[in-house]
Order: sequence, then structure tokens, then C-alpha cells
Amino acid sequence: MQLGLIGLGKMGGNMRERIRRAGHTVVGYDRNPEVSDVKSLEELVEKLEAPRTVWVMVPAGTATQGVIDELKDLLSEGDTVVDGGNSRWTDDEKHAAELGVKGIGFVDAGVSGGVWGLENGYALMVGGDKEHVERLRPVFDALKPEGPYGYVHAGRVGAGHFSKMVHNGIEYAMMQAYAEGWELLEKVKSVDNVREVFRSWQEGTVIRSWLLDLAVNALDEDEHLNQLRGYAEDSGEGRWTVEAAIDNAVPLPAITASLFARFASRQDDSPQMKMIAALRNQFGGHAVEKKD
Amino acid sequence: MQLGLIGLGKMGGNMRERIRRAGHTVVGYDRNPEVSDVKSLEELVEKLEAPRTVWVMVPAGTATQGVIDELKDLLSEGDTVVDGGNSRWTDDEKHAAELGVKGIGFVDAGVSGGVWGLENGYALMVGGDKEHVERLRPVFDALKPEGPYGYVHAGRVGAGHFSKMVHNGIEYAMMQAYAEGWELLEKVKSVDNVREVFRSWQEGTVIRSWLLDLAVNALDEDEHLNQLRGYAEDSGEGRWTVEAAIDNAVPLPAITASLFARFASRQDDSPQMKMIAALRNQFGGHAVEKKD
Amino acid sequence: MQLGLIGLGKMGGNMRERIRRAGHTVVGYDRNPEVSDVKSLEELVEKLEAPRTVWVMVPAGTATQGVIDELKDLLSEGDTVVDGGNSRWTDDEKHAAELGVKGIGFVDAGVSGGVWGLENGYALMVGGDKEHVERLRPVFDALKPEGPYGYVHAGRVGAGHFSKMVHNGIEYAMMQAYAEGWELLEKVKSVDNVREVFRSWQEGTVIRSWLLDLAVNALDEDEHLNQLRGYAEDSGEGRWTVEAAIDNAVPLPAITASLFARFASRQDDSPQMKMIAALRNQFGGHAVEKKD
Amino acid sequence: MQLGLIGLGKMGGNMRERIRRAGHTVVGYDRNPEVSDVKSLEELVEKLEAPRTVWVMVPAGTATQGVIDELKDLLSEGDTVVDGGNSRWTDDEKHAAELGVKGIGFVDAGVSGGVWGLENGYALMVGGDKEHVERLRPVFDALKPEGPYGYVHAGRVGAGHFSKMVHNGIEYAMMQAYAEGWELLEKVKSVDNVREVFRSWQEGTVIRSWLLDLAVNALDEDEHLNQLRGYAEDSGEGRWTVEAAIDNAVPLPAITASLFARFASRQDDSPQMKMIAALRNQFGGHAVEKKD
Repeated sequence: MQLGLIGLGKMGGNMRERIRRAGHTVVGYDRNPEVSDVKSLEELVEKLEAPRTVWVMVPAGTATQGVIDELKDLLSEGDTVVDGGNSRWTDDEKHAAELGVKGIGFVDAGVSGGVWGLENGYALMVGGDKEHVERLRPVFDALKPEGPYGYVHAGRVGAGHFSKMVHNGIEYAMMQAYAEGWELLEKVKSVDNVREVFRSWQEGTVIRSWLLDLAVNALDEDEHLNQLRGYAEDSGEGRWTVEAAIDNAVPLPAITASLFARFASRQDDSPQMKMIAALRNQFGGHAVEKKD
Repeated sequence: MQLGLIGLGKMGGNMRERIRRAGHTVVGYDRNPEVSDVKSLEELVEKLEAPRTVWVMVPAGTATQGVIDELKDLLSEGDTVVDGGNSRWTDDEKHAAELGVKGIGFVDAGVSGGVWGLENGYALMVGGDKEHVERLRPVFDALKPEGPYGYVHAGRVGAGHFSKMVHNGIEYAMMQAYAEGWELLEKVKSVDNVREVFRSWQEGTVIRSWLLDLAVNALDEDEHLNQLRGYAEDSGEGRWTVEAAIDNAVPLPAITASLFARFASRQDDSPQMKMIAALRNQFGGHAVEKKD
Repeated sequence: MQLGLIGLGKMGGNMRERIRRAGHTVVGYDRNPEVSDVKSLEELVEKLEAPRTVWVMVPAGTATQGVIDELKDLLSEGDTVVDGGNSRWTDDEKHAAELGVKGIGFVDAGVSGGVWGLENGYALMVGGDKEHVERLRPVFDALKPEGPYGYVHAGRVGAGHFSKMVHNGIEYAMMQAYAEGWELLEKVKSVDNVREVFRSWQEGTVIRSWLLDLAVNALDEDEHLNQLRGYAEDSGEGRWTVEAAIDNAVPLPAITASLFARFASRQDDSPQMKMIAALRNQFGGHAVEKKD
Repeated sequence: MQLGLIGLGKMGGNMRERIRRAGHTVVGYDRNPEVSDVKSLEELVEKLEAPRTVWVMVPAGTATQGVIDELKDLLSEGDTVVDGGNSRWTDDEKHAAELGVKGIGFVDAGVSGGVWGLENGYALMVGGDKEHVERLRPVFDALKPEGPYGYVHAGRVGAGHFSKMVHNGIEYAMMQAYAEGWELLEKVKSVDNVREVFRSWQEGTVIRSWLLDLAVNALDEDEHLNQLRGYAEDSGEGRWTVEAAIDNAVPLPAITASLFARFASRQDDSPQMKMIAALRNQFGGHAVEKKD
């Protein structure tokens, strides 16, 4: 089938390649002319036969909203837009309503796979009406990994991004789990080759996983991670997961702890621990560490 | 080679079978005469040629200590004892010292694999002096999964159980990660087939793992886990992990949150939340829920 | 001075009384005619001389928005509206802008004091432009406790509710602190009069506080809180505090733990712990507790 | 009455002074001859009439054990030893048993008050047999604050230190509560005088407390705590509180979070966050921060 694809960055570029390998036609647009197939969204829309399908793969928030706004003007009744970026699930309902006014369908697709997706396939979590989702099936089939897994129509509009968001929340806590265990093993003296302990866990254990394999890769490159700083960004989904939990009164202690650990990792000094130091000094005369 | 194996329960019985399949001789002893090969520890020791190797696979704590005490009397210089149970790593040094007085070697082995070990192999994390560990290699090779993983000589005496303990701590937080995500997905209305979302994650995602496969198995048996109570025991290693972290001043927020969630799951009512309710009532006149 | 007061519930009714005791004129309106001084908002506005000051003390969200909308129509340039309810700070900027279109001033006031406020005074945290805040000073002085504390002009519009929200977040964690300690003391056998331990802490300790005094009151009424269920509602500010922390990448582990403990207290059974039980059963054959 | 007091440091020295002001006789011993009343423990014991009462106020652990061992030799049946240091409650039973062999009584006393105790009195939480505790009442009365609070006979041997330990655990979480709130207020732009917000809370609020007063003192000395590093030690009781909770399967999320925040504050770089950074880089090509 024919697909318009907007956004050809690290993810979008590889996805174009994987969809083409499956025999489909992709007309890609990116603001960077070196990777773009067309010069404008107008040209992209012109090159597609109606009913058109356009996959949006740009940063969540303002950029996605801008593209949705433009597509609303350029597309026609019966066309379908897929948002495959990392949009917040609450934006999906808004976008579906905006496009729905003109009879344009909307599907949200959470996409996992990172730099490994081109070869292994991308896991897809999709939300939307059945009629819109089914039209996209050939593209989903091209993107997903071989075999029975890696694709789900999770529910109505928003369900795709919501599922992907929860996936990332789980990912935060799994990474934190390995990270905490690794720090503890590195700290004790009786264990003298932590890397080999991690490697041994890759078979026969309860905690074997793809993330564990990646941890071993990382330790093979830098056994004690001496070259790294203990600094971690977060990309939004972890925050949204906790916010969704709060909206639904669901306790998420491990996922939230993982998010907060990232926040703390980005602070040069901890304001709250200054207050702790100040209070200890006030009541107990405990020494404080003054800044240099 | 020849091995004495003490404790033929769910784990020990399967391990005897797997070692025998590899062509070794196992003399097994259990208090239950129906599964035991010999009638007493004395008989077990008599049946083994010196230098003997005896694997202890009984519950941690008093039971293990009792067997160690008996073996200290029955065995001779040059023999080796392996503790493959879930002993606390701090017990290992004590046992090594007690047996060392008579020149008996000691190795600690953390064993993972559960009910799947007989067919898939047991992951082994081993601590002890190189000479004692090397004598056991044929048995370790028989027990471990095929391939390059599933076995590590982690360090000195205690390092095996310490590594296994951390493995279990990580396991707690990974399980908690999936559990939190599952509860949140089940709670929201837009996602209408959470089980299929979990199934889809088994390929192409960052969070694919053996535990995820098990979660899907569980959901296939009981889609919303309606037949279960939200009640979880803990077997000691999680507690020890947090205690080791405290000893080493290592923050373990996600693992500890997972342990506390289990504690809370076992309370019919939460005393601390009674105090919260009482305080809210005191300052704000907020309604409290009285017991029936 | 003259004040219109909308909302005469548990808080508003007592505040009317305290302001009147200070010699000011209060025209109160409530949907409940039994407590209302006037029959309608129109009548309330008519009874006040310009420039008018109207204090809104109704539930946050829809109710407050409705009153703001009506006041926008009824009031005139130079009048001032105070929102003393538990509104989210993000609503304040919206309300200030809406009213500002007509030249009506807006002040947000976080109010603490609960059922004790009538006698002891209400702590007030206020946000808004200096000119609007200063006009309200006589009312603030009437409401606040005697002495140098209990009132602050915290900053621009929104700062009052934001400060009150953080106050409540701190309150959550302080209550949780006492509650955790109480549960632990109740659990151990060596301590045989926990209530007296709490009472003793009221002087000379680092943890003496008004909340501790309330805890002792509660224990005097019901020594082991046997008559209560461990069930706690939350009123919004705790959730907003965590959301504000997420917006600002500030780690709040203790406050968030306190919020999650309340969420968990309201669940008949824990879905996430069902998943933990299911997973333990899958890999280890651990017994699960079936529902009756 | 007559009291021997061993350990005349920051706490012990002030306690000697407060007991003397109440008209009692104190024979103090310290390794530092400049503050000591006698040259040796032998001399101290000689100066006291039987039945003797000796208060031990030295660092917990080895130092306390050493003094207990010496006193066991020097004292006689009918004498009583009080351990007023920060000993772990589990040590108390051991010490009581060791001294009990010779008929020497033992009382444990948790003491709170810090540098403010000399003037305001020390809060005392006491464990032991009634007959031993009652003999000490004159000293307890001298040390405690005036009024009905500040003293409790909490239960059997160990109950005093256990109660004091829980007091400190609560203290950790209360300090963390204020610290988290302070950091959040400092971070947002709408609130422009956080110190005055804290000051205002000292009357009429739910969160007024002695610790809040100290926080205001600290902010008066250094409004944004710019001169401090966010670094906090811990003195043992927080760790023991969490260990006691684990022993008793009591969830303590807020207290534990507070302890872990201190651990993290003492790390130059976070090993676990290195692992998070490494994993993010592995699966997503996310940039890592290399060390300079």
C-alpha cells in the first residue's frame, strides 16, 4: 500500500526503510531536505491517492500539534492519520476530534524498538476505531517483528499511546531494578566479578530479559561504567505514567521511585538535603558541610 | 563423579534427577524415607569414597545449621560441603569456618530455576575457594542450562548466596514493575484488552523477559486474575537485600518498595492508615470509617 | 470593612463568624437558605458598596468556576474577588485573567485551620498583586491567629494556593511519619504502652508538634484505634503536590509514598499484588490464596 | 541521690550539669581528664555508696560494650546500670543478661533533646524492670522537661531504646517532609519568599512543630541555604528502624525513603544511575554524559 510518512529522524528514517523492504510505497517528508522525498506537506499529500494514509512521526507536543493542524487542512474525508510519536494519550482524543470534524480518521500508535527496530521489528500498540486500524494493517504488519507478538489493537483512540506509556513506566522500574542490584553487588567485597554475575543470569534465572542482555553489553564495553556519569534524562512517558496513576488512584511505588531517581540524578546538589543538613545542625549541633 | 545430596524436596529431588541424567552418581538422603536412597547421614557418608562431596539442599536457618553440624562430625579432612539452599550469606562464613577447623572445604551455591529447572537447567551462583569450586565443576555443569550462561564463580565464600540474594531482590522489583503497569492498564477504560497488550510485548519491546512470558501464561489462565487474592509472601532474600543495602548505605528505593508492598498485602487492615484516619478526623472533622 | 462571602459550609460558616467578631460586616450567601444572609448572588452584590470585595469559599473545580463566572457578570471594575477554597493553583491564573478582562482584581488565599480555626485563627497563604492583597488586609487580620505568624503574601496570583498545596503535601508525609512509627511500636512486644510513649514525646523531643498532640487525643479516645478502619481519603492537594513536583522534576519520595499509602488503603484487594501472586505461582509453584 | 555518670561529651556533660542543678550528686568520669571528676572507673565506683547507680553515656557499640564489661567486674549485686546512649535495642537484652548474672540491674534510656536539653530538659524513654526504673526516678525527674510530658516507662528492657529509635525514624520522615516541600517551593517562580511562607506556618496550620521553628531559624541565618552542601549523615537509629520494620513485616515507605535520601546525598556520583544511563544508551542510542 501507499503511505505518507512525516518525520524521518532516527526512528522515522528506519521505519521508512523497513516498510519499503516489505514492498510498500512510502512518501517521506522531513524538514531536512537531505532525507526528504518531497519538498512540502502539500506535495506529500498530492503524491498519495485517496483515501490517503499519513503517519506522523515527529516530536510530541507542539511539533505534532502543528502537523495535525496542517493535515487537517490538506487531507479530505475518508483519509486517515496515524500518530506514531510519543504523544500523551490525552492529546489523542483531542486530535481525533479535530480531524473527525472533517471526516478524517485518527489512529494512535505507540512504537517501541529504538535503534534495534529496523532489523528486529517495532512493537506496536494501537488505539482507534476498528475500521481505521484495519486499513493500516499492512503497514503494521511490515513494521512489527515476525511471529505472533509485537502488535496489539489495545482499544479506542488513546489506548495505543496509553499502553506504550505504561510500557515505558514498567521499563523505568525494570532498569531501576537491575541498577540497584548492580550497585549493591559492586559495593560488597565478597563478590569480585559483578559483570560475570550479570552474564551468568542470562540463562536459567527468573530475571533473564532483553534489558539484562543490554546490561551485559554495557558492562563488556566498560566493566565498572567508570566512563559514565550517573545522570539520566527522562522522556515524558514516565511522568505521564505517574500522573495517570494519580488520576486513577493507583499506587505505583516502584515506577515512581525510578522516576524520582532520575530527577535526583540531574541535580548538582540536592536542595532538600540542604534543608536536612540545616535541621540536623539546628537541633543537634551536627556538623554541616559548607560549600567550598 | 559421586555426590551426596541431602534434602530431596521440590528442588532437591529434581536436582538429583538432572545430575543423574548427566551420568553422575547421586546418593540422596531425605527425612522422608519414600524418596531417600539411604537411611541416615551416616549411611550416606559411608557410601561415598573420599574425598567426598556433599550437597546440602535443606531450608535455610536451623535445618541447614543442623546438617552442617552433623556433617562436621561425619566428614573428614579433604571433603567438601556445598550449601545450595537459600542461606543468608552471613551464615556462609560461619559454616566455612566451622568446617574449616577440620579441614573440610565449603562452597555456597545460590540456585535459581524453580519448577522449570529440571528441564531448562538451574542458574548457579557460586562462592568459595577456587580449589573447592573446581572439584564441583562436573556437578555444576550437569545442573546449569546448556550454553555459555547460567553459571558463575562470583567470589569468595558467601558471594554465591549474596549474588542469588541480589538476584531475588531484582526479581521483586521486576515483578512489581509488571504488576504496577498491569493494575494501571486494568483501571483505565480506553484499554479494553490488557492481556493482549501484555502478550504483544513479548517481542520487539524493551521490557520483554521471561517474567513477562509468565505473566501472559497467568493471564491466559485467568484473564483478570479474579480467582486470586492480592496476597504475597516473601521468602527472606528480599529482606536480606534491603538489610545488605542498609549495611552498605546503598539506596534501593524500587526493591524496598516491592518488599513493603508484599508486607502490606498480608495485612487485613492497615494499622498505620488507622492513625492517618484518626488524625484527619482530629484536625479536619473528616469522616472516618468505623469497623462494622 | 464590608465583605461578601459565598459558601457557608463547615469552613465558610466559621469564617463568617470570626470576621464578624472582629467588627467587620459580612454578607453571606449559601445555596442553603437556612444559613444564607441573602437570597441570591445578585442580592449579595447589591448589598455591597463599591469597590466590592467578595470571598469565594466553595468546593474547588466546577463549583468555584461557576461562581467566578457569575461574579464576572455581576461585579464591576475595581472590585476584588478572593478565592479561599482549595482550588488548584493553575486555576488561579485562569480566573485572574477572566476577571481581569473587566478590571476585577483577583486574589487566591490558601486557608488552613480546619475545625479549630474559629477559635485559634486560620493560617492564610495569599497570592496576588500587592494592591489587591492590601485591600483585603483587614479581613486577613481578622481571620489569622494572633501574633506574628499565620499570614503570608507568598507571591503573585497562584502563590497562595500553591503554598497551601505544599503545606498539605508536607502534612501528608508528617502524618505518615507518625503513623508508621505508631504501627511499628504497636507491633513489638517489648513496648507495652505505646499511647504513653506518644504522650511522653509532647515535650523535649525533636518530633513534638500539633499533629502529635492530635495523635495523643485520638489514642486517648481509642487506645489501639480498634474502632477505625485503615482507610484514608485524599482531598486533591496531595495529588497536585506530586504533579507539581513532576512538572518541576523535583523528587518527593516521602510525600508521594504517603499519597500512595492512602490510595492503597481504599482498595478492597490489591490488583497489583494479585499479579505478584500469579507470577510467584508461575515460576516457583508458590501457593496462591484463592478467593473464597 | 548519688549517680555515677560515664561519658561527659556534648550530651553527658550537659546532663551532669542539669542533674546537679536539681540537687543530686554526680560523680562523672570521662577519658578526657579535663572534664572528668575522677581518674578511673575504679575510683568512680569507690566514690559511690552501695547500692550504686551508674549511668553510661558513651557511643553505642564497642565503647558501650567495653564500659558494660568493666562495670560488670567493678559493681556488685544490687547495683544498677543505665545505658543512656544510642544503643541498639537488641544490645540491651544482652547487657541486661550479662549484668544480671551478678545480680546487677539494667535499665535502658533513650534520650532526646540535643543541644537544647540542658535548658529545656531531655525527653526520656525508659525500659526495664519496675524496681530498677523506680530507683532512678529522681534522676529521670531531674533530666526531663517540666510538666506532664517528656518521660515514659515504655516497657521491659529494650523498650526505651526501641521507642527512642522509632522517635528518630519519625524524625527522619518529618524532616524529609519539610525538606521536600521547601525544595518544591524554592523551585517554582510564583512563590517569591519561601522563607516567609515557612514562617507563616508557625501558627494556625496543621504542620506547625518544633522542627518547623528550627527550619525558620535556619532560613533566617541563610535564606536559600546557599552556604550548605546537600549532604546528610545518619546516626544508626534510622537504619535500625527500617531493620526492625523488616523483622516485623511492617511497611515503612516514608521513613525508608528518608533514609535512602541521606544515603544518596553522600554519593559523589550514583552508581545505579550510571547503569540507567548505560541501558538507555544501549537500547535507544540516548546520549550519555561522559566523565570529564
